[in-house]
Amino acid sequence: MLKVAIVGGTGYTGVELLRILALHPQAEVVYITSRSEEGVRVADMYPNLREHYPDLVFSNPVAQQLGECDVVFFATPHGVAHSLAAEVLAAGTRIIDLSADFRLQDIPLWEQWYGQSHGAPELVGEAVYGLPEVNRKQIAGARLLAVPGCYPTSVQLGFLPLAEQGLLNGQHLIASCASGVSGAGRGTKLGSLFCEATESVKAYGVQGHRHLPEIEQGLARAAGQPLGLTFVPHLVPMIRGIHATLYTAEIDMAVDVQALYEQRYAGERFVDVMPAGSFPETRSVKGSNLCRIAVHRPQAGERVVILSVIDNLVKGASGQAVQNMNIMFGFPEDAGLQTVALIP
Amino acid sequence: MLKVAIVGGTGYTGVELLRILALHPQAEVVYITSRSEEGVRVADMYPNLREHYPDLVFSNPVAQQLGECDVVFFATPHGVAHSLAAEVLAAGTRIIDLSADFRLQDIPLWEQWYGQSHGAPELVGEAVYGLPEVNRKQIAGARLLAVPGCYPTSVQLGFLPLAEQGLLNGQHLIASCASGVSGAGRGTKLGSLFCEATESVKAYGVQGHRHLPEIEQGLARAAGQPLGLTFVPHLVPMIRGIHATLYTAEIDMAVDVQALYEQRYAGERFVDVMPAGSFPETRSVKGSNLCRIAVHRPQAGERVVILSVIDNLVKGASGQAVQNMNIMFGFPEDAGLQTVALIP
Amino acid sequence: MLKVAIVGGTGYTGVELLRILALHPQAEVVYITSRSEEGVRVADMYPNLREHYPDLVFSNPVAQQLGECDVVFFATPHGVAHSLAAEVLAAGTRIIDLSADFRLQDIPLWEQWYGQSHGAPELVGEAVYGLPEVNRKQIAGARLLAVPGCYPTSVQLGFLPLAEQGLLNGQHLIASCASGVSGAGRGTKLGSLFCEATESVKAYGVQGHRHLPEIEQGLARAAGQPLGLTFVPHLVPMIRGIHATLYTAEIDMAVDVQALYEQRYAGERFVDVMPAGSFPETRSVKGSNLCRIAVHRPQAGERVVILSVIDNLVKGASGQAVQNMNIMFGFPEDAGLQTVALIP
Amino acid sequence: MLKVAIVGGTGYTGVELLRILALHPQAEVVYITSRSEEGVRVADMYPNLREHYPDLVFSNPVAQQLGECDVVFFATPHGVAHSLAAEVLAAGTRIIDLSADFRLQDIPLWEQWYGQSHGAPELVGEAVYGLPEVNRKQIAGARLLAVPGCYPTSVQLGFLPLAEQGLLNGQHLIASCASGVSGAGRGTKLGSLFCEATESVKAYGVQGHRHLPEIEQGLARAAGQPLGLTFVPHLVPMIRGIHATLYTAEIDMAVDVQALYEQRYAGERFVDVMPAGSFPETRSVKGSNLCRIAVHRPQAGERVVILSVIDNLVKGASGQAVQNMNIMFGFPEDAGLQTVALIP
Repeated sequence: MLKVAIVGGTGYTGVELLRILALHPQAEVVYITSRSEEGVRVADMYPNLREHYPDLVFSNPVAQQLGECDVVFFATPHGVAHSLAAEVLAAGTRIIDLSADFRLQDIPLWEQWYGQSHGAPELVGEAVYGLPEVNRKQIAGARLLAVPGCYPTSVQLGFLPLAEQGLLNGQHLIASCASGVSGAGRGTKLGSLFCEATESVKAYGVQGHRHLPEIEQGLARAAGQPLGLTFVPHLVPMIRGIHATLYTAEIDMAVDVQALYEQRYAGERFVDVMPAGSFPETRSVKGSNLCRIAVHRPQAGERVVILSVIDNLVKGASGQAVQNMNIMFGFPEDAGLQTVALIP
Repeated sequence: MLKVAIVGGTGYTGVELLRILALHPQAEVVYITSRSEEGVRVADMYPNLREHYPDLVFSNPVAQQLGECDVVFFATPHGVAHSLAAEVLAAGTRIIDLSADFRLQDIPLWEQWYGQSHGAPELVGEAVYGLPEVNRKQIAGARLLAVPGCYPTSVQLGFLPLAEQGLLNGQHLIASCASGVSGAGRGTKLGSLFCEATESVKAYGVQGHRHLPEIEQGLARAAGQPLGLTFVPHLVPMIRGIHATLYTAEIDMAVDVQALYEQRYAGERFVDVMPAGSFPETRSVKGSNLCRIAVHRPQAGERVVILSVIDNLVKGASGQAVQNMNIMFGFPEDAGLQTVALIP
Repeated sequence: MLKVAIVGGTGYTGVELLRILALHPQAEVVYITSRSEEGVRVADMYPNLREHYPDLVFSNPVAQQLGECDVVFFATPHGVAHSLAAEVLAAGTRIIDLSADFRLQDIPLWEQWYGQSHGAPELVGEAVYGLPEVNRKQIAGARLLAVPGCYPTSVQLGFLPLAEQGLLNGQHLIASCASGVSGAGRGTKLGSLFCEATESVKAYGVQGHRHLPEIEQGLARAAGQPLGLTFVPHLVPMIRGIHATLYTAEIDMAVDVQALYEQRYAGERFVDVMPAGSFPETRSVKGSNLCRIAVHRPQAGERVVILSVIDNLVKGASGQAVQNMNIMFGFPEDAGLQTVALIP
Repeated sequence: MLKVAIVGGTGYTGVELLRILALHPQAEVVYITSRSEEGVRVADMYPNLREHYPDLVFSNPVAQQLGECDVVFFATPHGVAHSLAAEVLAAGTRIIDLSADFRLQDIPLWEQWYGQSHGAPELVGEAVYGLPEVNRKQIAGARLLAVPGCYPTSVQLGFLPLAEQGLLNGQHLIASCASGVSGAGRGTKLGSLFCEATESVKAYGVQGHRHLPEIEQGLARAAGQPLGLTFVPHLVPMIRGIHATLYTAEIDMAVDVQALYEQRYAGERFVDVMPAGSFPETRSVKGSNLCRIAVHRPQAGERVVILSVIDNLVKGASGQAVQNMNIMFGFPEDAGLQTVALIP
């Protein structure tokens, strides 16, 4: 069994890792850290996990103990992985970082968006961006893996087939996205209260969301040139789910967009290109690692609209992290990722 | 007291008219019809109205009785107002139609989108489109008033200031909108079930929603020329509310968009242009007749994003209907429309 | 116009007072305090109130300015009214306290349940318990009024007609109640997060909720003797509303319970005894000051089940506070309290 | 692989069987019926199952094809299993009936509550009531198995340890229960609409819910004598979950209720007796086959309050059905039942 550590296990991505790994046949969580909950039993904090972690207790993070594991997941705010990565890697332990610390290759850009100095610039060069549908080979050999953000996963998977064909070059794209409230994390912010978030919709972050440069980096790689993007996230009253509605400018009517997407994602276990005319629902991927995509040409015109849905905590975070782990350690790519979404 | 009739009083726009008119100081509902609920007391069907309509009973619609009222609201599926309008008008009674029957001036276009023959083409010419922020004068003299649809209200109010200045000419616009479930009405459809609609988001109607030609008609009037529009509605898990996120192409940086909107809507009781940088929440207008608007230039660029929110059952239907009634009969424009949204 | 001050205006009962008083024809909020939000405009904090309080700003509380008002509402945690009441009363200003500070007449009991010394024991004797359906006369003359808690309002109104007739004497009653999340206030607690509270139900406070002694005090007054009570509150995923399901032991079959309730509450503007066989929904009173009650004898047996619903922020707090103000100052009892619940 | 058929596969218990069996290592759904959806692909109706049932299509039920399976699940309205059971059993196929057809041993009682003649009285004698925590041995040998109802499962598991010890004899018990909306099924009823059910709580069925005689039958078996019961179900705005709050009369203070429950359910894979002082949340069992129970003595008194939660579609229906199948066919009792509840 692979020995797994989780740093920062009390947030929503941490508990989601615990849920997924509880059923993983080849990996076991042996060490979990939390400064604020040191000494608390996982089973007492998360009653859904009572049967699976009867004895696991949150510890204060100790680098040496991390180094005794095969892999460490960072489910922490940005900055933490920067400070611990070098020591963990030096011990021969591989890192899967769910935070934003190693997602951007452009260090000044990272510092601009995150408002602080980069804490581990020497490691950026070897960090691998963990979007398996793009980077599977590099992931297999990665020591330091950066798990993509939730919006970036849904938006990139939505635009990739067109971008890779050069069909978006010169366009100014629009990503109008909606996220469930869990995207804001388990922190006790006013806006995350039930009474503030339910029965309402609002946009936010129009002036600049931190996921914007990450999406632009991915689209530029795929297109071979920078693409313009307006990204507007919205908060909607549900726990989980991202719905990305993506608008291109004109795409030649001769392009069979449906076929292009089906071919691009043929064989991808976790991308489902739905039949023409479909409307993917976020609930159809709740708890699952799938991204479901549908493509439309409204009124049979030149503009293409792509609809892309994921569970922000699974394919948008912890599920994709485990998918990366499976690739890195040679396990079946869907090990531990069998959950079928509950409907209803 | 103005004598009011409501045809089709059992749907969500019907009960919303009852709620609003219950507190109207100058109007009284004296007649309400429903074929399916004939003989049922309003108070038994809608317990929130027990105190206000202890005796009102649903009747089978009789044209003569409609003709004895000062004004008739049609809160019916399309087609019904077509069949009754001429007779009601002939009796000297004015009509406020919440259905789509008289919203489009182009009769073949109406027939194309609604898939049936137009039942009262001879009345289309005198029908007044009831968006007070555009048409207040014509509304005052209207005999036959067409209340705008919910999406068209939020989208038109959002684009109007730019369209009227010619700043959208030649552009292909995008309206990415979200609606609460009450927009689908009180009919017992599978997709409107709690267990199907909650905890999920999905797009719908991408190939062509009936509100599209209505929006295009309004934008063309304002701009003096047709404007291209891609309109994608989404269903979100809340009862009431529309959130319209509107994307233009480039607008000259010299245009002070915030000032333009503030000037355009100065003095409008029911349009609130929020301060620069705001994100209107749909809950801030729940139960209220307000449209709240905020304008943005993401990353200080040329594209303008407008956020526009309404309550689909109030400003998007029954509230706007009463606002029109107030204008038509010379009452204060906000009579009966004082409800303050509940927060939380 | 009556000059009104609100101490502690940023919580949910504070903003609800603002909403109700915005439409009150004879009262005006001239002063509102908050230590944490000093200098912030009400309109910026609560966008639903932008039209009604364009200039009102939160101030640090100053006793002298409170004393210049006609009435002060305390919408504060317990203990605050204790510390300010004497000074305010000395200035000739009347107090309506929404906190628990003056609800219990038994001072040691208060200290036991609230875990601190009582800060104004000399004022307890003159404090009037503001349940108008019981105490209307004393309320009219009150200088210091204690607004009942939310659970106590729904439970007392539910049991009162039986208790007053001595029909509950010697019984051990059960109150199985459910509350919306706003009952926990606007504080940023983990359990109040959307992602923690939605899509779930749980009980809490079984070992002893602070509303228990208040309910027992009220029932003992009505019955003329102490009554046993098991009180189990539950948290349910909705913003507003309390649903109290009340179970008696055997009641003689000769008692016409429906008639008893109808007679007891005849003429009460804010208590609605529904027809036999009814099931009141909490949404039917959302935003309204009504308490709707239905009485049942399951399977035509001796046990009586009473269903009682209120909006916890209105009849359970701010609405009842304004109802008390209306009685104290001789206004119509329903002034400002006209809101009809939104359905849907 | 066990060959499984599902009759009535389009309802919520049907799709839940499909979800659970999709991951079952020893069983496979080979035949699924629906009169209304004949010819429709499961994958088109339930997008969450696209990966698992790419080819399965709803058929009109044919008794012969049912007889070729090893086991048939009936996920149908009452009456259907009555009409098909004899023929299916005659073919040597075992039946697991999720409907109410064979839950009551008292045939006249069944006819009284269901308002129709019993269609298979000759089979009642051999029907086994499928509550494994009570009946495991008989289940193993059953040909015709009646899966308990959702309320009866949560209420019986909650009262059983006390009832079996004779500690409830002579008492009149109370079960105050709350259910999510999925308990009303996938039928398009007005009361199940999102706009009717969300943001509200109401009681229903106080005069007599069909689960009452089933609960009474189970309690009488356990106690060896009939027990009085008042059962009040409530509808709360969530998809899944039952929360049962159970009230006894006085129980001798010498009884260590916590220890009694822990001993009774020691070794039960799907009953979790939580630590003293716990409040089980319905979300902690969502999608899972667990029943979590906590016991309380409010204010250290003689009355006992038991809190019992399940997922109505899993332990309250399809999960318990598969648990029974596992026992009947000698599989591990938790095969296919590994889902961990999502939190958040």
